[in-house]
Amino acid sequence: MTVARSNRRIVLGRRPTGIPAPSDFARADMPVERPGDGEFLVRNLLLSIDPAQRGWVNASANYADPVPIGGVMRSLAVGVVEESRHHNVVAGEHLYGWFGWQDYCVGSDAELLRKVDPRQAPLSAALGVLGITGISAYLALTEIGQPEQGETVLVSTAAGAVGSIVGQIARRRGCHVVGLTGSVEKAARCVAEFGYHAAVDYKAGLSTELIRKHCPDGIDVFFDNTSGEIADAVWPVLNRRARVVQCGTAAVPAWGPPPAGPRRDRDVLVKRLRHEGFIIFDHVTRFPAVAAQLAAWLADGSLRYREDIEHGLERAPEALAALYRGQNDGKKIIEV
Amino acid sequence: MTVARSNRRIVLGRRPTGIPAPSDFARADMPVERPGDGEFLVRNLLLSIDPAQRGWVNASANYADPVPIGGVMRSLAVGVVEESRHHNVVAGEHLYGWFGWQDYCVGSDAELLRKVDPRQAPLSAALGVLGITGISAYLALTEIGQPEQGETVLVSTAAGAVGSIVGQIARRRGCHVVGLTGSVEKAARCVAEFGYHAAVDYKAGLSTELIRKHCPDGIDVFFDNTSGEIADAVWPVLNRRARVVQCGTAAVPAWGPPPAGPRRDRDVLVKRLRHEGFIIFDHVTRFPAVAAQLAAWLADGSLRYREDIEHGLERAPEALAALYRGQNDGKKIIEV
Repeated sequence: MTVARSNRRIVLGRRPTGIPAPSDFARADMPVERPGDGEFLVRNLLLSIDPAQRGWVNASANYADPVPIGGVMRSLAVGVVEESRHHNVVAGEHLYGWFGWQDYCVGSDAELLRKVDPRQAPLSAALGVLGITGISAYLALTEIGQPEQGETVLVSTAAGAVGSIVGQIARRRGCHVVGLTGSVEKAARCVAEFGYHAAVDYKAGLSTELIRKHCPDGIDVFFDNTSGEIADAVWPVLNRRARVVQCGTAAVPAWGPPPAGPRRDRDVLVKRLRHEGFIIFDHVTRFPAVAAQLAAWLADGSLRYREDIEHGLERAPEALAALYRGQNDGKKIIEV
Repeated sequence: MTVARSNRRIVLGRRPTGIPAPSDFARADMPVERPGDGEFLVRNLLLSIDPAQRGWVNASANYADPVPIGGVMRSLAVGVVEESRHHNVVAGEHLYGWFGWQDYCVGSDAELLRKVDPRQAPLSAALGVLGITGISAYLALTEIGQPEQGETVLVSTAAGAVGSIVGQIARRRGCHVVGLTGSVEKAARCVAEFGYHAAVDYKAGLSTELIRKHCPDGIDVFFDNTSGEIADAVWPVLNRRARVVQCGTAAVPAWGPPPAGPRRDRDVLVKRLRHEGFIIFDHVTRFPAVAAQLAAWLADGSLRYREDIEHGLERAPEALAALYRGQNDGKKIIEV
């Protein structure tokens, strides 16, 4: 077995305020480590660039401990095992887990999310449609949103890595599916590729009236990845007993302190709404089963996805910043 | 059978802006009507004065059609049947239903909520602890709040007709129960009578720090009857996977348009909160069973309640206004 001498690592240089910028990161290479008992050495092949990474570098309370200053940037990745002293992992296997912005990671059960079968789908799919974005779409929509046939589902960031899968699953369930997205091109793609009956470019001007026009029977499930003024335009169109799935807050750049918006308690009360948050990492034990379901839909051609793959580990910080500018064209991935 | 000649009626004279004032109502007596097929004539004994009545006279969309101008003020009441052409109602029975601010009501299935057994508890209990307030407390707490033993439950309007029952049921379930209420006297009563471990007079100054002091393990269930700045002080103390039961919005005088407050989507997401509204009238079929459970607790002395009974139909409009000023001392009832 050959182990490269040097491990390129991208670490957090300082704590960003708001959206992380490339200047918040630094290179800090180290020799490659060897696995100890119960550990494995994985060589990263593909890195996942995710909106949630903003939260992981933020010092304020979040659902995960913040990445420490000087620590390797937290990232999901797919890699191949080069050496193992873990009882259930063998060299040559492909893994999906918390392997960070670096060439090599020594990991253990704490870093491992699931094994990846390269015959099931292209390896990159494990980071997106078969990874946290696709599995989030499936679980958050079906378990919190609970869409019924004939109901109307509205999705913000409809063309994104999560939204594009939500749209297709909602359509498969017999719903009227409407998307909000950030360009005319993405709106067209929502309809042509992702199962939406209609999609609106919110940058061209969004209003409650426009949403009502596309949702003449009101909205029963609002799958919200944005919050902010986009969500404000949607809430008045919610039907009685509608479910609001909070899966992201991408349209609000900073939350400390929370910005002001219209109070919603009266709507929650009078319409008996249910507003609930979803964090995919509560559901890790279900990853293999949901990924298998999504892979079956990929195999029969009924589920489509887009990837936006850049090359080179050193591109990761800029790719993350571009994600928040909406410049990605599908699930953003770095090929190491 | 003797039927009084004249039916005193209090009708809506004009549509209030915000809290209904006595000047928004007028007297408009009419001859007593006779029941037709499928109907009964009930003589009102007790009228329920409820915070929700504000919503029923408001023109904006609500969970019930607004009371029309010139129509008898909508009200829950307990009355005795004087004449019946309804197959399941006989003269002499006591009924709980939508009988309005008037001496007599000709009703049918649409107006009837449940029959009242005067041997079960005092008749007035049917309007409060065995009526919509007690049944709301039971169902909203147990079905949306879902408190588990050892969890912390915080209740706003803790001494009110709903809150006082919520506190006792939460205590019965083994929770740490903390109340927010509008005076030192009510706070003392929460602890002495209603099962609270601690209660805070929010008018003496409410802060997140103060709530945190009384809820050292955070809050798992927030039973909110207030919304507004009171709720703003509470939300930062919510634990992961906390449930917020929106049962009222008494601290916000007007909602058209909604006032601004801190956005909560990030908390909902990161803490995986569930925020859900509760309207008792979705659950009418469960009234008899829940009332029987609550009556059993009354009978064994383990459930306490307060009533604030005024005398005279003509006092109803002023009693409603006083309710919003927090001047009631328990469930507000008018003895006709």
